[in-house]
Amino acid sequence: MPELGQNQYGKAECRVVRVVRDGAVHHIKDLNVSVALSGDMDEVHLSGSNAHVLPTDTTKNTVYAFAKEHGIASAEQFGIHLARHFVSSQEPIRTARIRIEEYAWDRIETSGEARHSFVRSGRETRTAQISYDGTRWEVLSGLTDLTVLNSTDSEFWGYVKDKYTTLPEARDRILATEVHARWRSGWSDDTLPMPDWERAYAETRGHLLTAFAETYSLSLQQTLYQMGARVIEQRPDIDEIRLSLPNKHHFLVDLEPFGLKNDNEVYFAADRPYGLIEATVLRDGATPRIPTD
Amino acid sequence: MPELGQNQYGKAECRVVRVVRDGAVHHIKDLNVSVALSGDMDEVHLSGSNAHVLPTDTTKNTVYAFAKEHGIASAEQFGIHLARHFVSSQEPIRTARIRIEEYAWDRIETSGEARHSFVRSGRETRTAQISYDGTRWEVLSGLTDLTVLNSTDSEFWGYVKDKYTTLPEARDRILATEVHARWRSGWSDDTLPMPDWERAYAETRGHLLTAFAETYSLSLQQTLYQMGARVIEQRPDIDEIRLSLPNKHHFLVDLEPFGLKNDNEVYFAADRPYGLIEATVLRDGATPRIPTD
Amino acid sequence: MPELGQNQYGKAECRVVRVVRDGAVHHIKDLNVSVALSGDMDEVHLSGSNAHVLPTDTTKNTVYAFAKEHGIASAEQFGIHLARHFVSSQEPIRTARIRIEEYAWDRIETSGEARHSFVRSGRETRTAQISYDGTRWEVLSGLTDLTVLNSTDSEFWGYVKDKYTTLPEARDRILATEVHARWRSGWSDDTLPMPDWERAYAETRGHLLTAFAETYSLSLQQTLYQMGARVIEQRPDIDEIRLSLPNKHHFLVDLEPFGLKNDNEVYFAADRPYGLIEATVLRDGATPRIPTD
Amino acid sequence: MPELGQNQYGKAECRVVRVVRDGAVHHIKDLNVSVALSGDMDEVHLSGSNAHVLPTDTTKNTVYAFAKEHGIASAEQFGIHLARHFVSSQEPIRTARIRIEEYAWDRIETSGEARHSFVRSGRETRTAQISYDGTRWEVLSGLTDLTVLNSTDSEFWGYVKDKYTTLPEARDRILATEVHARWRSGWSDDTLPMPDWERAYAETRGHLLTAFAETYSLSLQQTLYQMGARVIEQRPDIDEIRLSLPNKHHFLVDLEPFGLKNDNEVYFAADRPYGLIEATVLRDGATPRIPTD
Repeated sequence: MPELGQNQYGKAECRVVRVVRDGAVHHIKDLNVSVALSGDMDEVHLSGSNAHVLPTDTTKNTVYAFAKEHGIASAEQFGIHLARHFVSSQEPIRTARIRIEEYAWDRIETSGEARHSFVRSGRETRTAQISYDGTRWEVLSGLTDLTVLNSTDSEFWGYVKDKYTTLPEARDRILATEVHARWRSGWSDDTLPMPDWERAYAETRGHLLTAFAETYSLSLQQTLYQMGARVIEQRPDIDEIRLSLPNKHHFLVDLEPFGLKNDNEVYFAADRPYGLIEATVLRDGATPRIPTD
Repeated sequence: MPELGQNQYGKAECRVVRVVRDGAVHHIKDLNVSVALSGDMDEVHLSGSNAHVLPTDTTKNTVYAFAKEHGIASAEQFGIHLARHFVSSQEPIRTARIRIEEYAWDRIETSGEARHSFVRSGRETRTAQISYDGTRWEVLSGLTDLTVLNSTDSEFWGYVKDKYTTLPEARDRILATEVHARWRSGWSDDTLPMPDWERAYAETRGHLLTAFAETYSLSLQQTLYQMGARVIEQRPDIDEIRLSLPNKHHFLVDLEPFGLKNDNEVYFAADRPYGLIEATVLRDGATPRIPTD
Repeated sequence: MPELGQNQYGKAECRVVRVVRDGAVHHIKDLNVSVALSGDMDEVHLSGSNAHVLPTDTTKNTVYAFAKEHGIASAEQFGIHLARHFVSSQEPIRTARIRIEEYAWDRIETSGEARHSFVRSGRETRTAQISYDGTRWEVLSGLTDLTVLNSTDSEFWGYVKDKYTTLPEARDRILATEVHARWRSGWSDDTLPMPDWERAYAETRGHLLTAFAETYSLSLQQTLYQMGARVIEQRPDIDEIRLSLPNKHHFLVDLEPFGLKNDNEVYFAADRPYGLIEATVLRDGATPRIPTD
Repeated sequence: MPELGQNQYGKAECRVVRVVRDGAVHHIKDLNVSVALSGDMDEVHLSGSNAHVLPTDTTKNTVYAFAKEHGIASAEQFGIHLARHFVSSQEPIRTARIRIEEYAWDRIETSGEARHSFVRSGRETRTAQISYDGTRWEVLSGLTDLTVLNSTDSEFWGYVKDKYTTLPEARDRILATEVHARWRSGWSDDTLPMPDWERAYAETRGHLLTAFAETYSLSLQQTLYQMGARVIEQRPDIDEIRLSLPNKHHFLVDLEPFGLKNDNEVYFAADRPYGLIEATVLRDGATPRIPTD
């Protein structure tokens, strides 16, 4: 009989918005929460018995109930509450993994004192993944879709040429990418002091932007390493970071047929194909744990 | 023989990025430009003769060449250059319509003096549509995907109840929408002074946000009208505005089964279905020209 | 005071799946229904009074109730039931427009006699738009995303060359497009016999495919006209058709740098930009009513 | 200094269409190919030296050149040609991973003998992933977005109830999912006979559909296991399969407020949240190699 391997289940993409009212001043958190549970689940696969199955509908209800009971101090903290609950309250559930996307909102300033109006910041999406097996925690914070561009200080030359190479070398090009990053916190145990997740996120994001902007780039790989290294060096709480950087090509348009000189001024922003550069950067001696794709 | 009716053609979605270098300080404009031309085009439909057809590939080339020749002072101004060119340079082409999306970028501030690093603001997309028939101009400026939310000061009650009505009345609800707006400039003739399109956009966007935030809402229709009316009243250069506001429902989650009271704190943000509220607001006496959907 | 212009409201994207059980054999209809109502709605915009407003939540409930009460014989027939109901049952509502998308499912054949298993056909999406003002009907049937390709029998040459033209002429190219079509039925009055909407759809779709495949093309405009003309000629029940055909460019890859000859064998399928060809074809003497974009 | 961990690079999403002309009868293959290479790449990350870097532009060129040189017998075979080339021709490159999506086209039948017209089948997307380290091959074939539905023969009851459980048990429900599957071939060595990849795909797809349709389901996990087990039992060439099945909820609409009985006839097809059920099924004794998410 075919064997059952790794398996997991849960409710994905529970959209929860939490409002906190501090008099006339309101605060909001806007999350998309996905739960994945695993454990002693052979029977439901083999015979269809649901005796060990907490319904995905219940995991969804728990997300909304916990938004009230615990509030949402940060995506990471909220995920920690949820993961601990599922593993500790249901004997057959041995591990829980909570994934969260967070959408940021800025305040609309008005002349009055009431402050309950918001405009969604469409910039990056913040992410968090919390895994728990009853003993150890693994927290991966991150972001996706942070689109950045340097309009100069990027070169690309000195590469291998084989029979299929036609690309001309470039001494001044646009470098643009959409940053996808996940970083692993050193916090892994309830006995350790909990990090300030909100501040850690804001500062790490800042380091990524600064390193991107300040690196004179000879390759997107070099820029990637500088971004990761800066985070590892500046954030003692982070042991590992994985970056995935699509090279959003901006091709210089050939205007010579029209009698015009294109002095790095007019570019075609291409969709596909795109270069894709991915790497992990680690604190010296750390064990890599963030999955590679 | 079946008759040929209205027809148009051109190249859609030309992605052009224009860099202006002011020493170490760079500026960028990032557009998506679509061209639609019409005129004396019966033959290409009926016999396949392309004798009157400027290829769509050429209209694309023109977009890139004009980004160099004229620069991109604003989406509207760029579209005006393009539309005038097509209508005035090709006898069979009688009308041109240029549609533009503009993506905003913010500067990444660094410690040095060089300023050529940018992060894409994902907030709204700015739009412009420029139509020209050789004599009159019609310029529709606008925006899409400006997502806003009031966490209170919204009610909904006193509506019609028929046999299919089950909705309970609400005295305090979240009101959220994704603003899609197009407004028509009074500028329609080369003899009139050209508006400052950049400033007009920024200020109109501000009026929409302010009206949304400051309206105590009894219905999304009322909020819509207040947003449109504020633009018409504050901007003498705008004669008409069309707003399309999806009601992004945030449903209060029933936490009573879990012994919890939900005091307007925890919401489920729904995807579909959604209410959709659309209307035109006009300067008194103006003729509506913005198409309704 | 700024004037209120055209306005409409309703619930958009109500996803309804209707199962009919004929013993062990089941049938399903899978629709996405959007309702837009207009009429005597000034007050809700100006003062926020909802006294004339049937809530969008009620319009959604009506969609589901009617799926039970009337069944879904076809998208068009279902929309006619809904539109008639809203206009005739609510005095302030003067016009209703129902838009429907339909997703097709094929049967999964199994060895047993039970037939209740389906696989979604991802091909085109069928569309219908039903408008009613209490007297006259306008029914636009249609489809979107029907992607077709001829790998030969397409040329493009003899076009206008201006100073921005660089495109070489082509005597044998791939012609590919994604058909978006809407056609208007001659049925406009309850006294006329109702068409067989299911059969009309299947046959019209067939005419579009046949005309695309059988036209030796000198321009996409010519192909478009042949597609529209065939529908008008073969379907006496259709008075007008509007086609929007993006030219999904397949560019012949230059393999000469690698010492290879590309004899119309290897193509790059491009995303953006794309040509966009749009036109209406009418029965001789018919009045165009399908909106142009 | 922070350490560089796993890294890879290449060109993603090269869209290649290959036409084969057999007289008037044409055949097409439509692929989206992504290349990821890794090896001795420390320097490009640390110093920006590209001396070991074959440009991603070259990997793209190679895709198009190989479509001519080798043809595209199947996605898997095409990926094998590419992976072997990169690893064997560039000393610093030690491993190559090729990912491919394939879009199916059906023939448009016409009355004449010419057969070069196609309509894209929008059903599932076929996938392939080929990994090579110079010695061993790993080939994962698969599919995504195969949407299936059983309108009866599905129950869900007997599950755990905790304080957050509100879901009523169901004795007859719709079961619908969007199948995402990847299966691993036993072929791992050039000395073994190469499978017939086209036939293996068609038959495996058939087994998945049959098992979905024929399983009387007490849980989606049970259906998943039956689908995986059938593939392992019927296909001696496949050692492992990973299935990811979102539970596309179809909720029975409560029509009682309208005086109507809903006898499993009218459903609301929900978007989010959705259950997500994932598992691996293995040949007894096989080592799991397909990554879990």
